[in-house]
Amino acid sequence: MEIITTIEKVRNTINTWRKQGYSIGFVPTMGYLHDGHAALIDEARKNNDKVVVSIFVNPTQFGENEDLSSYPRDLNRDKTLCESHGVDLIFTPSPDEMYCNRKAFVNIIDLSDTLCGVRRPIHFKGVCTVVAKFFNIIQPNNAYFGEKDAQQLAIIRKMVFDLNFPVNIIGVPIVRESDGLAKSSRNTYLSSEERKAATILYKAIQEGKQAIKCGVSADTIINTMTNIVDTEPLAKIDYISVVDANTMQPVQEITSPVLVAMAVYIGSTRLIDNFSFDTK
Amino acid sequence: MEIITTIEKVRNTINTWRKQGYSIGFVPTMGYLHDGHAALIDEARKNNDKVVVSIFVNPTQFGENEDLSSYPRDLNRDKTLCESHGVDLIFTPSPDEMYCNRKAFVNIIDLSDTLCGVRRPIHFKGVCTVVAKFFNIIQPNNAYFGEKDAQQLAIIRKMVFDLNFPVNIIGVPIVRESDGLAKSSRNTYLSSEERKAATILYKAIQEGKQAIKCGVSADTIINTMTNIVDTEPLAKIDYISVVDANTMQPVQEITSPVLVAMAVYIGSTRLIDNFSFDTK
Repeated sequence: MEIITTIEKVRNTINTWRKQGYSIGFVPTMGYLHDGHAALIDEARKNNDKVVVSIFVNPTQFGENEDLSSYPRDLNRDKTLCESHGVDLIFTPSPDEMYCNRKAFVNIIDLSDTLCGVRRPIHFKGVCTVVAKFFNIIQPNNAYFGEKDAQQLAIIRKMVFDLNFPVNIIGVPIVRESDGLAKSSRNTYLSSEERKAATILYKAIQEGKQAIKCGVSADTIINTMTNIVDTEPLAKIDYISVVDANTMQPVQEITSPVLVAMAVYIGSTRLIDNFSFDTK
Repeated sequence: MEIITTIEKVRNTINTWRKQGYSIGFVPTMGYLHDGHAALIDEARKNNDKVVVSIFVNPTQFGENEDLSSYPRDLNRDKTLCESHGVDLIFTPSPDEMYCNRKAFVNIIDLSDTLCGVRRPIHFKGVCTVVAKFFNIIQPNNAYFGEKDAQQLAIIRKMVFDLNFPVNIIGVPIVRESDGLAKSSRNTYLSSEERKAATILYKAIQEGKQAIKCGVSADTIINTMTNIVDTEPLAKIDYISVVDANTMQPVQEITSPVLVAMAVYIGSTRLIDNFSFDTK
């Protein structure tokens, strides 16, 4: 497994692979890898000759009062996980290698304005820009994103469609702890008491899934899930929403594929979870 | 020479070429080709195995009151010019083929806000977005842009740098009529009287070039050029500016490479011209 920190070197290595006819699978991450990332890597490993993982805590997707400086990092542990899952190359550039007097941005309107975009207004601009950069540097055939970040996945799909990036986007299902909590690097912020309280998200997800099968309205689903989260004193809801699966715009009636998404503060840690529902 | 209108077909053709190891030179145009475009094509022809020309009057770079509907078009004439200059492929998609419920944009701050960006606030966002799309569809090794659109060239260079597009950008010098008027598809709008008046831009450019060699300030250059244009009753200055060649921001003293750029209305037709000056 190679570990490369510069754009020039990663391009040289990947160009050599491409000339040899190898397909490239790409898993972009912010590091502090967990089983959710491992599932992305395993999916990439199955369907590509070479697997590239980027590890980069992207400053442009963090707001001013967000957790950029405290975001957990452990490159040595990440290397071990990547090696054991058959990764060929880790690309881990510095912020200076990625950004120099930056003026160009990729932005998505409408899809970025709902759900997490309300609380994090610059977040998806930063995500789109850095993913566009990685796509241009690595030029993967396939790129893998977790369904836990469902809005991000929808936005990346739309960016790729609108800007014609020659990359297949593959969504990979949420990986959960045994008690249902979605795996996340940010779970490490939770105290043991908060960690127990955090299971309330999955309980709400399960009830929401039951409710939606009965053909109820979006409001009913949201109320059902809200009532469950409100039973947990350490939980404070940021949003629980039912949106169109493609446009990310709120819907009232469930007549086409939807995403039911939630963000909940457990103490000061903001956690997200979601499920998709197709009427077919 | 092939003429292709769909993204899927152009990708298939170019992928075949790429697998055969051919290098791809790309000349993006809005059609109604003239000798300036021919110079871009000739430059591409010299240094690439295959030359692709796009002909697309891009709606997203025209403001509401601009000349989208009246912009001159003549595909048959364009085909003849391309064929005679050895073009391998013309890609001429419809607006619907290029845009479908578009939400993603590429934007550049600061460099877009000066010069033509003052009068045309959405122009460069449209240019960056469509060029990003073409780069992703065609994946050229080299792309050719005219120096007449100097701000566009600086913006594209910055977009490619910031977003790491794997494309070399080559600027090609302005091609002029025998009386000095820069070749432009929009020259066709000029009446014969206006056509004569339009030479005032080049006269101002020549005087500006003389003045800058004397080591004068930006204001002196601008005044010199303004005085010349003002002698022409049919001419109305939009701007005459001296800007840093990379940042496109106005400068007072000429201590680093600069662009001296002008936009002048001749009747209702807006024409641009420029020259670069390096202190070395």
